[in-house]
Amino acid sequence: MAENAPLFDRVALIGIGLIGSSLALAMRLHGLAGHIAISTRSAETLVKAEDLRLGDSYTLDAAEAARDADLVIVCTPMGAQGAVAQSIRDSLKPGAIVTDVGSVKATTVRDIAPHMPDGVHLVPGHPIAGTEHSGPEAGFAALFPGRWTILTPALGTDADATDKVRHLWEGCGANVEIMTPEHHDRVLAVTSHLPHLIAYTIVDTADQLEDETKEEVIKFSASGFRDFTRIAAGDPVMWRDVFLTNRDAVLEILGRFTEDLTALQRAIRKGDGEMLETTFARARAVRRSIIDAKQHTPDVKPNGDTT
Amino acid sequence: MAENAPLFDRVALIGIGLIGSSLALAMRLHGLAGHIAISTRSAETLVKAEDLRLGDSYTLDAAEAARDADLVIVCTPMGAQGAVAQSIRDSLKPGAIVTDVGSVKATTVRDIAPHMPDGVHLVPGHPIAGTEHSGPEAGFAALFPGRWTILTPALGTDADATDKVRHLWEGCGANVEIMTPEHHDRVLAVTSHLPHLIAYTIVDTADQLEDETKEEVIKFSASGFRDFTRIAAGDPVMWRDVFLTNRDAVLEILGRFTEDLTALQRAIRKGDGEMLETTFARARAVRRSIIDAKQHTPDVKPNGDTT
Repeated sequence: MAENAPLFDRVALIGIGLIGSSLALAMRLHGLAGHIAISTRSAETLVKAEDLRLGDSYTLDAAEAARDADLVIVCTPMGAQGAVAQSIRDSLKPGAIVTDVGSVKATTVRDIAPHMPDGVHLVPGHPIAGTEHSGPEAGFAALFPGRWTILTPALGTDADATDKVRHLWEGCGANVEIMTPEHHDRVLAVTSHLPHLIAYTIVDTADQLEDETKEEVIKFSASGFRDFTRIAAGDPVMWRDVFLTNRDAVLEILGRFTEDLTALQRAIRKGDGEMLETTFARARAVRRSIIDAKQHTPDVKPNGDTT
Repeated sequence: MAENAPLFDRVALIGIGLIGSSLALAMRLHGLAGHIAISTRSAETLVKAEDLRLGDSYTLDAAEAARDADLVIVCTPMGAQGAVAQSIRDSLKPGAIVTDVGSVKATTVRDIAPHMPDGVHLVPGHPIAGTEHSGPEAGFAALFPGRWTILTPALGTDADATDKVRHLWEGCGANVEIMTPEHHDRVLAVTSHLPHLIAYTIVDTADQLEDETKEEVIKFSASGFRDFTRIAAGDPVMWRDVFLTNRDAVLEILGRFTEDLTALQRAIRKGDGEMLETTFARARAVRRSIIDAKQHTPDVKPNGDTT
């Protein structure tokens, strides 16, 4: 291989939403892919991807995009992964690597793995990156630098295949961590799925208030509510699939959350100021850990965020 | 009054945390105050305020700061408002205006109003602005532009006094809205108090996980959790006072939230994807309303916010 040869000669992107389009741009920018074949179910989305010049070839047929690909990246909503795997299985070449970007890893194991022919390497992945926007027009190459991508290869997966997927993500600027699918799903239930469920709930609670109050909630949203609406702005289909597939881990952490909320509710009702202050002080310390771990957003201008 | 005379000849700031220090800097920048007298209970904080040159005179005696002031702004935690009102009552001059910046307005009515001598005008206020930082070193003059300040004068309050307080806030760049204290407290229970309570709870739930998982929660916090920790980073004493004083409105909206959360929990358990998707899509529409109302933060770089 020549010194500047791309990591993969031919990459197929199946699904071209926020993550797929960002990957296309990042792979191009960093010279990681020779040919980028793009496939999506929607003709309208495919035209957008072509207008944005995200790839080198475009097709509505996933099997055609995957044919002869060295790497296939499944970037569809999780609910479509099984159907995609079925449709591409016969066109995968021996030695091909298949990966995905789904938010729940048990799903990839359940829906994609059974369809993989012998000699094809499955390395499930999840980039912990995103914005509140979706669709191919939302993608940008700088989505990944400084963020984590988690890979969850099964025991016995070809180490070279895992390494190549790792190098792809590192080439896009991400940090890579490897863990089991079960562990990934438990951690993400806490860091991502529960926060999103809570944010969706509170926004919906406010949305059901009488019209006059609702207008004021929008108007005075800078007092805290606004931050929840940002979290609650993700793609509804993607999030539906997250909760349908990571059900057990989400219900478990939700149970703990509800217990803790009930304890605070009781403290408010009883006027137990000491309990409230202690809890709030403890939570504040967690914030400092996150700043120390450099996982906050230091470029937010400090205007009107709280109280 | 000469054309460039300040709005108030002498302003007393009682309490010099984030809001007090930001007000001091903004009043100075915009020439709204002749003399700024600063008072706080803590000698250490007073020295900081003096080192930062936030005012023209400094004292640990609130009564001394308030003497001959045209405007007194009570910027202490709400729990201290009653004691402050008692200590300054005898040094307030006839015609003086007293205002505050507390997050619950029923408290101001309950704790400050009874101590106000005849001829002194009370115009309670609440700037909906803040950051996750506290203390005099956290203040900055640009905290208020584009944000709302709510004033809740009692029926029969001198209109000129209310106007002068309005002009002070407008002079600092804020928009001003007038409503009753009860209405303020109901609206803020939704937009601010409930979001903060929820954020404190979820951060505390995560903090109680076993150590290994907790480390990973910090590491992968960019997936949603991080936004909650920012909201849960406010001053614990201030927030304790908010929940102790706005108890009924908070418990009422918390009840609705819990109902809605239970409904989503049931949908997850039963695998009701349609209910989940419909709810999430509705919440997303609320986000668009906030963007239309220009109450979001457009300068946030879109990196690693969701999924």
